[in-house]
Amino acid sequence: MVREHAVLSVRPGQDAAFEAAFDEARAMIAQARGFHGLTLSRCVERPGTYLLLVDWERLEDHTEGFRGSAAYQRWSELLHRFYDPFPTVEHFEVVQTA
Amino acid sequence: MVREHAVLSVRPGQDAAFEAAFDEARAMIAQARGFHGLTLSRCVERPGTYLLLVDWERLEDHTEGFRGSAAYQRWSELLHRFYDPFPTVEHFEVVQTA
Repeated sequence: MVREHAVLSVRPGQDAAFEAAFDEARAMIAQARGFHGLTLSRCVERPGTYLLLVDWERLEDHTEGFRGSAAYQRWSELLHRFYDPFPTVEHFEVVQTA
Repeated sequence: MVREHAVLSVRPGQDAAFEAAFDEARAMIAQARGFHGLTLSRCVERPGTYLLLVDWERLEDHTEGFRGSAAYQRWSELLHRFYDPFPTVEHFEVVQTA
């Protein structure tokens, strides 16, 4: 299992439009092979900043499978226009829990 | 419910020592009022970078309760020396899941 992580900076005044677009876009990613779940969260301290976490079975399910799919094209069309700057996406592997 | 979020940059060569210290420190936070769980994850793309996510019942359980406790003093003694730079800690509220 690997967790995709991105902190999203949404253009000022676009929060509601972004959340509506994300509500549509999440169906695109939820059907991807190896998708295990996601949360979109809103920052308390910095309005317009969101945290996206997506759990994948394997790294390649995200980097090759989803990103190489037609569903990702639609995802990008729906969401990428809201970001400024474009987010850095990284992956993390759990080492400890409590 | 609110999620504490911090990306931790651990000093080069200190990964194993940090993970051992965290293994001890997590008992300090797990007993805090309002603590609901945590994950510590290691970055795939940037060795020495970790993601800490802690779920709290209320924001104040972290910012006032835990940070004002003796357990936080011990947590800090165990962990803060590993960070360079010192991390930015923020909080997020879930708005969508899938």
